[in-house]
Amino acid sequence: MLTVCVAPGGKPLIEEAVRAGGGQVVGDPHGAEALVWTDSRPDGVREYLTPSVRWVQLPSAGIERWTREGLVDSSRLWTSAAGAYGPQVAEHALALLLAGVHGLHRAARRRTWQRDRHGEQRGERQGDRQGGVRGGLRGATVAVVGAGGIGRALIPALRALGADVVAVNRSGTPVEGASETVRFDGLAGVWPRADHVVLAAPATPETYRMVGREQLRAMPRHAWLVNVARGELVDTGALLDALRAGEIGGAALDVTDPEPLPDGHGLWDEPNVLITPHDANPEALFTRGLAERVRENVARYVRGEPLLGRIDPARGY
Amino acid sequence: MLTVCVAPGGKPLIEEAVRAGGGQVVGDPHGAEALVWTDSRPDGVREYLTPSVRWVQLPSAGIERWTREGLVDSSRLWTSAAGAYGPQVAEHALALLLAGVHGLHRAARRRTWQRDRHGEQRGERQGDRQGGVRGGLRGATVAVVGAGGIGRALIPALRALGADVVAVNRSGTPVEGASETVRFDGLAGVWPRADHVVLAAPATPETYRMVGREQLRAMPRHAWLVNVARGELVDTGALLDALRAGEIGGAALDVTDPEPLPDGHGLWDEPNVLITPHDANPEALFTRGLAERVRENVARYVRGEPLLGRIDPARGY
Repeated sequence: MLTVCVAPGGKPLIEEAVRAGGGQVVGDPHGAEALVWTDSRPDGVREYLTPSVRWVQLPSAGIERWTREGLVDSSRLWTSAAGAYGPQVAEHALALLLAGVHGLHRAARRRTWQRDRHGEQRGERQGDRQGGVRGGLRGATVAVVGAGGIGRALIPALRALGADVVAVNRSGTPVEGASETVRFDGLAGVWPRADHVVLAAPATPETYRMVGREQLRAMPRHAWLVNVARGELVDTGALLDALRAGEIGGAALDVTDPEPLPDGHGLWDEPNVLITPHDANPEALFTRGLAERVRENVARYVRGEPLLGRIDPARGY
Repeated sequence: MLTVCVAPGGKPLIEEAVRAGGGQVVGDPHGAEALVWTDSRPDGVREYLTPSVRWVQLPSAGIERWTREGLVDSSRLWTSAAGAYGPQVAEHALALLLAGVHGLHRAARRRTWQRDRHGEQRGERQGDRQGGVRGGLRGATVAVVGAGGIGRALIPALRALGADVVAVNRSGTPVEGASETVRFDGLAGVWPRADHVVLAAPATPETYRMVGREQLRAMPRHAWLVNVARGELVDTGALLDALRAGEIGGAALDVTDPEPLPDGHGLWDEPNVLITPHDANPEALFTRGLAERVRENVARYVRGEPLLGRIDPARGY
């Protein structure tokens, strides 16, 4: 029987998932064949990486903290939780995008029926320029950068609202539901024709600050930038400049760089910024999503089938 | 040829639509066979209702201002714009619902990464109570009251997010995409099991204050109430009491009663209220939606086919 150590600390829901998948929960990593790590930080994980551990299941979709510390190597099998939280993070991304496009961030700050003259006039002017895209995603082109679990869950919802989706991934392999799939290296052609951009790509050296001054300038002035991936994908200084100069419509961010975003940071003052403090995947849903993934992967491991979220140490995700 | 008077005032896009539908635009209502009224208010319409006018196309989906003044009778054919703005209002409704459920109204008001202790604790507690529905529509039951153009456009988007939809309409005729359709007179059974409620029903004597103290008490404590229909569907005083008592999760309102909502009204102070000032259907999209409808209905009239949005004077919509 597959012996699985769940650490650090006890997580009844996760241990239950191990058993439901056909594994046996053991307390000691020495002798355990698998390790399920339940903390989003890798602190203290080394003492659990005993010679007997052949497979490590990580709790996050993004694993840059593990790769940065050189933990992920090919001496054992590593799996991330990529895709496990896709639907819920996708929903948060859609909530952020719709809020921006429909001006709900401004509405939430008003305490009067009268529209705020400054903010709204700016909104109206942008609306005129773009020929009616203001007010809706219907007929708009949305670029979804990264076509993993989040992207795949987001695309059908965007389509149901009448938006056209340009998916961007590493391979260029067509993504279901997207009217077009573009390879990462073709991104330069995407910025100018995307009404809005959603970042859902892993944090890798390749995606580090992939949205900077040049990319922001290339976007339409009404474009909303949504980031539910990692703060490091965006050059925060360039974003702030672009917002101040009115080069884009706004930014809705669940992640920032630095994170947490310090009090007094300029982004807090921008009228067309909406920030949620990395809560696209709140704790309750996080555990539920991880438990589902653990059950599935334990069952696959027991049956000798390929695991979900297998990490390629060379690519770093 | 069908002669159509477009009033009050010139609306080039609408006149173009009349011609595209096969009609002829005339300036004088005397002798015109049809009248397209482009103002959301009926003020001054009487002088255009000449004996020659057999058909009147109104610009709104809701026509209670016309019925209240006794304008809509069976001496001629009346059509509303019901359904013409459905997709865009549905998108606004979804934006409001997602914003509420994901706490974006609170996020928009924060200027620090730290969660506001009072509001968030309340949110967390609600989340615990409902077993994880907080954080998402996935797996939640959403009641869509009124299955006209807005409801029909909203349902596929809710489904794409993994929500279960209970549609409520007058007839009980099954609505596509809803897992269940309930007749208006069965609403009492819907409130307790709907995680969230979207009001998209016409304003009629039957729907007047359909959501009052009793209905709000019957809803789950995490429920968000979204109203994109007419303010009069909700008893505002009862809503404010329910919010203050924590009987529901929150309210996202594009319409209010009274409207405009006066400065200093208690709803402005409630942490779990999000108000947009009747802008689900902004001017630019309004004209575009009306033009599409006018072209279609003129073409249908010319061909002798049934018109879209035909009003039954007895029912009042």
